[in-house]
Amino acid sequence: MSFIDSIGFIAAFLTTSAFIPQAWMTWKRKRAEGVSLGMYCIMVSGVICWLIYGLMLGAMPIIIANLISLALSAFILAMKLIYK
Amino acid sequence: MSFIDSIGFIAAFLTTSAFIPQAWMTWKRKRAEGVSLGMYCIMVSGVICWLIYGLMLGAMPIIIANLISLALSAFILAMKLIYK
Repeated sequence: MSFIDSIGFIAAFLTTSAFIPQAWMTWKRKRAEGVSLGMYCIMVSGVICWLIYGLMLGAMPIIIANLISLALSAFILAMKLIYK
Repeated sequence: MSFIDSIGFIAAFLTTSAFIPQAWMTWKRKRAEGVSLGMYCIMVSGVICWLIYGLMLGAMPIIIANLISLALSAFILAMKLIYK
């Protein structure tokens, strides 16, 4: 793997896993008042577009990273809708 | 522009602009207790890696999208550190 590819994988790993602390915090507190509903509606839509993009290119890294991001951001969106 | 490219641009636009509502909400409320510090530390690091990746590839869409994401996510991180 080239140096550039490894930077790309690290970047994908970080921006995908970044949602985990927010999902955990919101789940643990059962409160989401500081979380923006607008952000997660737009983020989920954007991640779905990345997923379609990855599927059309057949690019596994984009597909995998965005499947995980979709699960996490949709989870946070659901908790925002439930806990307000 | 091909259909696939336009999906990619829409995806980049959405996942970049998604931070705007969270930045605006946190700035307006001057409170950030529901926002995860861990998320934005990891997100800023990941976006910096995407920026390096884009610069090394000379890929303007990746550079521009991640410059904007860096400004927005760093702004939210700064407000989280200031307002707790």
